[in-house]
Amino acid sequence: MQMNISARNALKGKVVDVNVGAVNTEVVIELPGGDKVVSIISKDSANKLGLALGKTCYAVIKASHVMVAVD
Amino acid sequence: MQMNISARNALKGKVVDVNVGAVNTEVVIELPGGDKVVSIISKDSANKLGLALGKTCYAVIKASHVMVAVD
Amino acid sequence: MQMNISARNALKGKVVDVNVGAVNTEVVIELPGGDKVVSIISKDSANKLGLALGKTCYAVIKASHVMVAVD
Amino acid sequence: MQMNISARNALKGKVVDVNVGAVNTEVVIELPGGDKVVSIISKDSANKLGLALGKTCYAVIKASHVMVAVD
Amino acid sequence: MQMNISARNALKGKVVDVNVGAVNTEVVIELPGGDKVVSIISKDSANKLGLALGKTCYAVIKASHVMVAVD
Amino acid sequence: MQMNISARNALKGKVVDVNVGAVNTEVVIELPGGDKVVSIISKDSANKLGLALGKTCYAVIKASHVMVAVD
Repeated sequence: MQMNISARNALKGKVVDVNVGAVNTEVVIELPGGDKVVSIISKDSANKLGLALGKTCYAVIKASHVMVAVD
Repeated sequence: MQMNISARNALKGKVVDVNVGAVNTEVVIELPGGDKVVSIISKDSANKLGLALGKTCYAVIKASHVMVAVD
Repeated sequence: MQMNISARNALKGKVVDVNVGAVNTEVVIELPGGDKVVSIISKDSANKLGLALGKTCYAVIKASHVMVAVD
Repeated sequence: MQMNISARNALKGKVVDVNVGAVNTEVVIELPGGDKVVSIISKDSANKLGLALGKTCYAVIKASHVMVAVD
Repeated sequence: MQMNISARNALKGKVVDVNVGAVNTEVVIELPGGDKVVSIISKDSANKLGLALGKTCYAVIKASHVMVAVD
Repeated sequence: MQMNISARNALKGKVVDVNVGAVNTEVVIELPGGDKVVSIISKDSANKLGLALGKTCYAVIKASHVMVAVD
């Protein structure tokens, strides 16, 4: 299903790590090429989405929230 | 130089596309595994950082700015 | 189709105004109760989503991006 | 009092739910038309603002933080 | 008038520079101690707020939007 | 060392307060002129950066995340 959202980055990948905290849950998403993106969402959201290891999902990031840095 | 910033995602990659707009500049960063992240920053910042094709840079993203979606 | 995203606010409504700018497009979304939410997204995203007057869409907002103020 | 802030959305409403967490507090604001917006702010901020049930307040959201999605 | 908003940083200062762009306006705010904060808001918002040189205003920043970096 | 990042605000200062919470850590950074900026980052990030009292650091803030308000 093509997920249509205005955010420029909707990077499809798989959940490879889930760290449930007191308030938030940290989710590590591995992209097809092996690069990893870390997301922190509320515990409720993580439960609602059923984010278990291996689950296919999208890392959704507004392009304006991606900063660029150089050495 | 190890760039230490509190943002959880400092993804090293190369600039593969630069679209200079009236106000902002869109920068496409290719990660080592081939996945691409789109950033929109101000034209001034893009010039200041010298973001030309092939330049090594970091896509810096706070983990709390990475949302997760599922089909 | 129930769109599952970790953002706590996915407010369903209709497009009631679209202002196309040089770089961005301002979209006004009217919620079922008549309240209006203003979004600014890139012109490309607005075109990609086909955001014309009357179109049903979701205003997607992370709960942590909603500040609260009092008089 | 007209609250003047650069954020395009300063939606006036009433607090209809407050969930105090370990670190953050979730505040549900009902707009005049009945639509609800969820905010997550720090516990300290919620206490400082005296956000009790029925209190009039504003949901303050930058337009660039409102994404748009379509089915 | 004490402006009550959940954002932890409401830094009072004066406008010392205003750069009007095609879409956005860049506002430089000097804090009492001489340090400067740069804000980019929409042109409409800048006009609505009457942000002229010397005007007293607040730089409003959510604490979670302040990242920390070290050399 | 000139830290090159696209964020327009990289305000150099010293850590004057650190409040470690269950999930997040609140860091207060005093700028050269005496003004203070509050940052909330994850506990892990604060530990990784070694943010102890007196440490020199940068408050990194995207200009588009600085809103402006007036009385």
